[in-house]
Amino acid sequence: MSEVLVARWSEIEAVLPGIDLLTEMERAFCAYSAGQCVVPPVGELLFDDPPGDVHLKYGYVRGEETYVVKIASGFYANAALGLPSSQGLMLLFRQTTGEPLAVLLDEGRLTDLRTAAAGALAARTFAPKNIECIGVLGTGIQARRQVEALQDVTDCRRVLAWARHEKALSAYRAVMENKGFEVLTTTDPDELGASCSLIVTTTPATTALISEASIRPGTHITAVGSDTADKQELEAALLRRADLVVGDSRSQCRERGEISQAVRDGALGEDEFVELGEVLAGKCPGRTDADQITVCDLTGVAVQDVAIASAVYRALTSKVRK
Amino acid sequence: MSEVLVARWSEIEAVLPGIDLLTEMERAFCAYSAGQCVVPPVGELLFDDPPGDVHLKYGYVRGEETYVVKIASGFYANAALGLPSSQGLMLLFRQTTGEPLAVLLDEGRLTDLRTAAAGALAARTFAPKNIECIGVLGTGIQARRQVEALQDVTDCRRVLAWARHEKALSAYRAVMENKGFEVLTTTDPDELGASCSLIVTTTPATTALISEASIRPGTHITAVGSDTADKQELEAALLRRADLVVGDSRSQCRERGEISQAVRDGALGEDEFVELGEVLAGKCPGRTDADQITVCDLTGVAVQDVAIASAVYRALTSKVRK
Repeated sequence: MSEVLVARWSEIEAVLPGIDLLTEMERAFCAYSAGQCVVPPVGELLFDDPPGDVHLKYGYVRGEETYVVKIASGFYANAALGLPSSQGLMLLFRQTTGEPLAVLLDEGRLTDLRTAAAGALAARTFAPKNIECIGVLGTGIQARRQVEALQDVTDCRRVLAWARHEKALSAYRAVMENKGFEVLTTTDPDELGASCSLIVTTTPATTALISEASIRPGTHITAVGSDTADKQELEAALLRRADLVVGDSRSQCRERGEISQAVRDGALGEDEFVELGEVLAGKCPGRTDADQITVCDLTGVAVQDVAIASAVYRALTSKVRK
Repeated sequence: MSEVLVARWSEIEAVLPGIDLLTEMERAFCAYSAGQCVVPPVGELLFDDPPGDVHLKYGYVRGEETYVVKIASGFYANAALGLPSSQGLMLLFRQTTGEPLAVLLDEGRLTDLRTAAAGALAARTFAPKNIECIGVLGTGIQARRQVEALQDVTDCRRVLAWARHEKALSAYRAVMENKGFEVLTTTDPDELGASCSLIVTTTPATTALISEASIRPGTHITAVGSDTADKQELEAALLRRADLVVGDSRSQCRERGEISQAVRDGALGEDEFVELGEVLAGKCPGRTDADQITVCDLTGVAVQDVAIASAVYRALTSKVRK
């Protein structure tokens, strides 16, 4: 057997600056919507005590070098032990022979980055030209990573963050001001719509936080938080009112996320949305007017994991070859 | 993050002599039948060109240290490249936190060994006392490993091997005689029943090879080859005639393997078999008479992967600690 590359996070982090994640995500979504990807249903392993869940996502893009398996877990009692609740790794195998090629010990961080890169791609594709303030629902890791990733697609460095509690907002402000953002805060979610033409939602809420009435014409919303059949951040009526609703995966968005909620609510027909990759490939129109309201629902698809793992693997091995 | 142990095959092989695989399999099947295991459905990833299939098996025994994920593939065009068609690895994670603990780069060989150890365990549990000749259907890797593993449970070193072609039989004879066995061969599968009171079936046949009429009273058959809904090596009537039919997993044996074939055929009721772990735990009787015919159908359950990976991990880390 040829040697298997084992990369720790420090080694992965070192090659990230050389990777154009937005372009990788764009290619991944286009390949996905063009039917070039094989992405079976997500595998799940559950634990009761302490509570935890493990997800196995795997797949490949036909004709590429590798297939990818991601194992990602959330153990929510880890915090008390001083450990991150997210754990995980990604594996690459040769698509033509099954040989293991690499183990990326990314501790779940590549998932955070690929999710944020997809959000930035959605903003680049759908957001209006002038953004005076970025609205962020939530203050967790995605609330940080999404805003950081937006630096590549907008010059706006002003953020209005919402959370239920002032303490979380203060912590978020401190972290993000350190990274060069001006951070305003609110505990009223309807304030986001009044000030922001680009809003990113990142909470695990299970009842809508953003009302239809609070959103002005010309707003783009990227919904990242809802990735199950239970979670919801946007009022269903907001998706009905939107001029364009986009999902990352047609089949998955019918099962989980904001679109599935609006479809179950009857506010949206199950064919009244398009796939991100179809817009990126020019097969469907995107925003056609500055006054349109657009919503892009990102539930997370395994092809994003395939894309980021493959890009990191190529970068690590080209570095070795040099 | 703590260091992740990465073990190549040479390191894994070095600790195997210190592991009692039969005892590990016995504990695994008992835990499984006692409902102490969590083993979700197998994940599958398929490839067309070149053809290949990847299986993801994963699970854990409640209360143990680790959970295990196995990725195993078969790419049948590998032989032309001088590569084994089987590829794969096993991963261990801490059950209470999700932290990755180890990557076992076993190239699929631990699967071969755990399958063979289960066969030896079945023979120890069900075979008659006097075995003059071991019958083996097939000449592939399991035909070798099963007979090797039987050395731990019987003194018999005489083997009667069946295959369709003399060439495969000659190759098998050469390999196994090198390992100290006396090997007779035949191209008539009914000859096994005439000479052997312990028969192991290891082929991927899809129509029955061993007839009911060919089997004498007092025979035990371990059926290893059939692990899908299509494969079949034993005539359904043989399972009806058997005094005891045992499966490794009640739910899985209803879906795949010899038992599922006999149930679909109407020869066996879907409750007319017991689980291996129930017999091992003394909850069901095993062989009670020297003249009984017993059949043990091993379709392969993920808890065997959990057991062998955990045992190897414990051996590797206790070695490191010394």
